[in-house]
Amino acid sequence: MQESPDPKLVVCAIAGSLRRASYNRGLLRAAQEVAPPHMEIRIFEGLADVPPYNSDVEAQGDPAPVTALKQAIGEADALLIATPEYNYSVPGVLKNAIDWASRPPKATVLKGKPAGIIGASMGMAGTARAQLALRQSFVFTQTLVMPASEVLVAKAHERFDAEGRLTDESTRKHLADYLVSLAEWTRRVAAPRG
Amino acid sequence: MQESPDPKLVVCAIAGSLRRASYNRGLLRAAQEVAPPHMEIRIFEGLADVPPYNSDVEAQGDPAPVTALKQAIGEADALLIATPEYNYSVPGVLKNAIDWASRPPKATVLKGKPAGIIGASMGMAGTARAQLALRQSFVFTQTLVMPASEVLVAKAHERFDAEGRLTDESTRKHLADYLVSLAEWTRRVAAPRG
Amino acid sequence: MQESPDPKLVVCAIAGSLRRASYNRGLLRAAQEVAPPHMEIRIFEGLADVPPYNSDVEAQGDPAPVTALKQAIGEADALLIATPEYNYSVPGVLKNAIDWASRPPKATVLKGKPAGIIGASMGMAGTARAQLALRQSFVFTQTLVMPASEVLVAKAHERFDAEGRLTDESTRKHLADYLVSLAEWTRRVAAPRG
Amino acid sequence: MQESPDPKLVVCAIAGSLRRASYNRGLLRAAQEVAPPHMEIRIFEGLADVPPYNSDVEAQGDPAPVTALKQAIGEADALLIATPEYNYSVPGVLKNAIDWASRPPKATVLKGKPAGIIGASMGMAGTARAQLALRQSFVFTQTLVMPASEVLVAKAHERFDAEGRLTDESTRKHLADYLVSLAEWTRRVAAPRG
Repeated sequence: MQESPDPKLVVCAIAGSLRRASYNRGLLRAAQEVAPPHMEIRIFEGLADVPPYNSDVEAQGDPAPVTALKQAIGEADALLIATPEYNYSVPGVLKNAIDWASRPPKATVLKGKPAGIIGASMGMAGTARAQLALRQSFVFTQTLVMPASEVLVAKAHERFDAEGRLTDESTRKHLADYLVSLAEWTRRVAAPRG
Repeated sequence: MQESPDPKLVVCAIAGSLRRASYNRGLLRAAQEVAPPHMEIRIFEGLADVPPYNSDVEAQGDPAPVTALKQAIGEADALLIATPEYNYSVPGVLKNAIDWASRPPKATVLKGKPAGIIGASMGMAGTARAQLALRQSFVFTQTLVMPASEVLVAKAHERFDAEGRLTDESTRKHLADYLVSLAEWTRRVAAPRG
Repeated sequence: MQESPDPKLVVCAIAGSLRRASYNRGLLRAAQEVAPPHMEIRIFEGLADVPPYNSDVEAQGDPAPVTALKQAIGEADALLIATPEYNYSVPGVLKNAIDWASRPPKATVLKGKPAGIIGASMGMAGTARAQLALRQSFVFTQTLVMPASEVLVAKAHERFDAEGRLTDESTRKHLADYLVSLAEWTRRVAAPRG
Repeated sequence: MQESPDPKLVVCAIAGSLRRASYNRGLLRAAQEVAPPHMEIRIFEGLADVPPYNSDVEAQGDPAPVTALKQAIGEADALLIATPEYNYSVPGVLKNAIDWASRPPKATVLKGKPAGIIGASMGMAGTARAQLALRQSFVFTQTLVMPASEVLVAKAHERFDAEGRLTDESTRKHLADYLVSLAEWTRRVAAPRG
């Protein structure tokens, strides 16, 4: 069995907030900057266009923004979610996108997909509760979330500058290490041994 | 201290699904039919119009459907949620409405509001996981969810008819008892003793 | 309706750790020091003696340490749990005590009992996950946990001295305020209006 | 790369109940009967002897029953937990064993260990809540729990006979399929590709 030493990994990244200056969007941009060379992080920008899930609508065929979402996830080797914490859970906006992505046709794009979950918030717990809530949904979808190793960015307002750039060096280093682990995890679980 | 024997209780009821023939909407219609005489259950019909939560939008003022949602909850003595289970949690559509309702201005309408959570699904667990997930969000909002006593309608397709009417008599009886408990709970926790 | 202005409230307090110098035991001692004058906090010291729950044993009658536990809770107006976080949840030792306390004979002592949950840990999240996990068990037992208002003592090693005394003044103040809220909550939900 | 077609897999199985006639012990015995030929399921019988976790005790060295527990897990290729549901979560007795197993010395035996979670209860939800609660702890320990595919044995009293033998054929078939999946999962995630 031969493998090229560093096959390219494509990561579909989704920030769970629609706010323009969102810390979690900033976290994904930082991830692009510190990612290992073989990892390409593509930020999915269409979350705001995903309509509210409604199975009557779905029965007429996926709306275009849903098709785009499923395609973005389906083409990627791994998924990376940066989630804020709203009311001790994931934002409804993010959960709604997952509700759509979890549906057929075709085998759902979430099934068996390696994934990482990170998050930033102004509080002390740094989205700890939201990240666990999201893991629970990914149990149902059989998405393979990397265990434990976590990026919980607490007190985000002290770690990002006014332009939403992650400036805290220890957080940037932690994020870089996390992405290396995510690459290893993705290779490990991506597919059964030949 | 004098109280009229059966003061009217207004309940704001929200079904977590947008599907026309939703079991959970049917469950709320059944609740209207079996409610005790002093309880008025008003089904909030505007969930589909609530836009995706975005704090940039919020900063411009609440969109009209959000104002309507907050008003419907604010005017009620109690809240009643009928939730499906999507991906082991509440639908994103429902969570998004809660995300809006949990926000100022004015003290949030969810704080201190007595509430009940019920749900119907085709599976065996009858939304058990979604109901717990919803309780977690209501801890943050300080919404006073009635403990334990639960309406978990499993195998919903066997208990509703083709028109979405709850026909199963034991479930109707259980629901009626639940609403009596909700009325007691609402009176008990609604406000500090004078 | 007349009430004495400050009726005494008895609180049964349980620390979830068996370690002698436990931060959570220290947190309960601090609670005794800062409690409002009408509140008596009794720390239950018998957790180490509660045997592993086994319904075969229970069928022979409650072991003495279990009887003591149920009595301590039953005699109190409210329950106060100080929990560490082990493996993103409550310690097994604490859960085991709850498993016993949740059982008959007599109506279970946990049902309808007002309760507060606090916790201290060395990490940043300050037992946020364990507190939510404990709330989930208290849904089943119908224990009336005060919503939201939380004491999450993060970085406990910086806030306690070598003797396990809580020295951080802002935490002591926060704890004092929490106990006032717990007293209000207990009076509010303790029993239906006459 | 050559592999023998059916390398033996050793599974350490733990039932979360101490009751002699426990359904969950019965479920593990059934698992032994229906396991694929290359899978050896060893039921850990020492749960009752594991003392309450106490870090002061741990500092003196692991008690013998804890050493036995860690060794049983450490020697196995995978872990299989059959959990009852107590108070919407895992039994304290089971969580206590996990608390011990999650501790050093040596890299904890739970880290990176492939695992399956199953459970039986008399209720309708069949330990759905307890299984999710257990997954949350295994996030912290970085135990690799197989996603989704679940064995939730509801109404256990109708599926086991008086001797605690699983007699329901569809459940036995489901369990057999589950164990085949667990074997695949174990091979898939057990170790990084060479």
